[in-house]
Amino acid sequence: MPNRDVLKGDWLPNISVDCVIFGFQENQLKVLLLKFRNSDIWSLPGGFIGREEDADDAAKRILWQRTGLENIYLQQFHTFGDLKRNIGAIAKHEEINLAMGRSKEDLKWLSHRYITLGYYALVEYSKVNVELNDVSDDSAWMDLDQIPALFLDHNKIIKTGLAHLRSSIDTKLAAFNLLPETFTMSELQQVYETILGKELVRTNFQRKMLSLDILERIEKKYTGGAHKAPYLYRLDKKKAEAFLSSAS
Amino acid sequence: MPNRDVLKGDWLPNISVDCVIFGFQENQLKVLLLKFRNSDIWSLPGGFIGREEDADDAAKRILWQRTGLENIYLQQFHTFGDLKRNIGAIAKHEEINLAMGRSKEDLKWLSHRYITLGYYALVEYSKVNVELNDVSDDSAWMDLDQIPALFLDHNKIIKTGLAHLRSSIDTKLAAFNLLPETFTMSELQQVYETILGKELVRTNFQRKMLSLDILERIEKKYTGGAHKAPYLYRLDKKKAEAFLSSAS
Repeated sequence: MPNRDVLKGDWLPNISVDCVIFGFQENQLKVLLLKFRNSDIWSLPGGFIGREEDADDAAKRILWQRTGLENIYLQQFHTFGDLKRNIGAIAKHEEINLAMGRSKEDLKWLSHRYITLGYYALVEYSKVNVELNDVSDDSAWMDLDQIPALFLDHNKIIKTGLAHLRSSIDTKLAAFNLLPETFTMSELQQVYETILGKELVRTNFQRKMLSLDILERIEKKYTGGAHKAPYLYRLDKKKAEAFLSSAS
Repeated sequence: MPNRDVLKGDWLPNISVDCVIFGFQENQLKVLLLKFRNSDIWSLPGGFIGREEDADDAAKRILWQRTGLENIYLQQFHTFGDLKRNIGAIAKHEEINLAMGRSKEDLKWLSHRYITLGYYALVEYSKVNVELNDVSDDSAWMDLDQIPALFLDHNKIIKTGLAHLRSSIDTKLAAFNLLPETFTMSELQQVYETILGKELVRTNFQRKMLSLDILERIEKKYTGGAHKAPYLYRLDKKKAEAFLSSAS
């Protein structure tokens, strides 16, 4: 694996990668953000593409560097190529960069125009160990409706990534990547609701999910309460694969 | 507008644009391809992004340069960043390039690694006037099932573009961009069938289209035959906009 300093490496010029990492916690869809060292500026985890590296591998590497996770659900969704997206923007942050210990030479590289490849990742929140590095001194999982004004066009990148996630929720079974291996129907519904940004009717949702024929009901969950314990489900991987190949 | 020579200009290095231009002719979905001068190698229309140009504007410019069309339906769908997609591939075509009158210096530029932004365009076939240039000496609209082995990974780019077109046919009303202003229900069905690659049941298709409440029935079409003349339809732009904003 390469050096963790984002500036050390033989990178392609003018091309970057930004990752929208979605997690599900406390019934909310959240996004993992990083804070630039010695500043109050938050950004998406990102990096560059090695001259001898596939773009998809660069995104996987960046995710691994930031979260310690491998083999996670990752989708390239859009490339952001507006001229004005970052011209001059990094220069504005010159003080911050110098405070981070960046040389004037590093700054010159960072102040180039970048076309950025947007990827979104769906991760199981509890498995993530955020790695801070020479660029970031803090990280946070933020609710979608509580995200501050981010670095460059990163708010727009999140918005676009969420729209792509929404549009593929049915055909790609994406939501299941946010859940642990077993879950209740109610937890599954909460994931769908937070991605779609709206409430769903419980009976309709349950009927639809069961009709997909991709779930395995495993056992009664003991809750200790007086109410009927909800069933636990698990995604049947073979059935899910069959569904995905028929939907594509 | 810039010079038509794809190599003359101040371009971003390592980044290119390739356009899958879809048209509908003789009940078939077709793709516009260009042949490299003095060769039998076919490719997608493509080009580079100016240092002072938005990526989307570059795609629009390339389409204008090749088809003479402006304001057409254009969607960025995927960025192809595999390391092996073109390393060495252009060098292999050194003879062809030299036959085209390219200098060794031009060849050096062309033999760099490129990450390419894939766009697809939907055009009304009859309005296209293909412009040949210093790179291309022939063009053709080819049936999807008759496309030869193309330059680099262009077959893969077409396949991926078609998959994206298919997945957005319902939510983005994309198919209407391939038809003239007025059309019969049968013509509309043929467009859907050729995009989806399968036959549809006439009555179901008609019911579904009418239920969208986006079509305006304008008049009886006179066919001169003994059979009942089919109705002509037109997309109601206001209703279509309302549909699109509710679907997104």
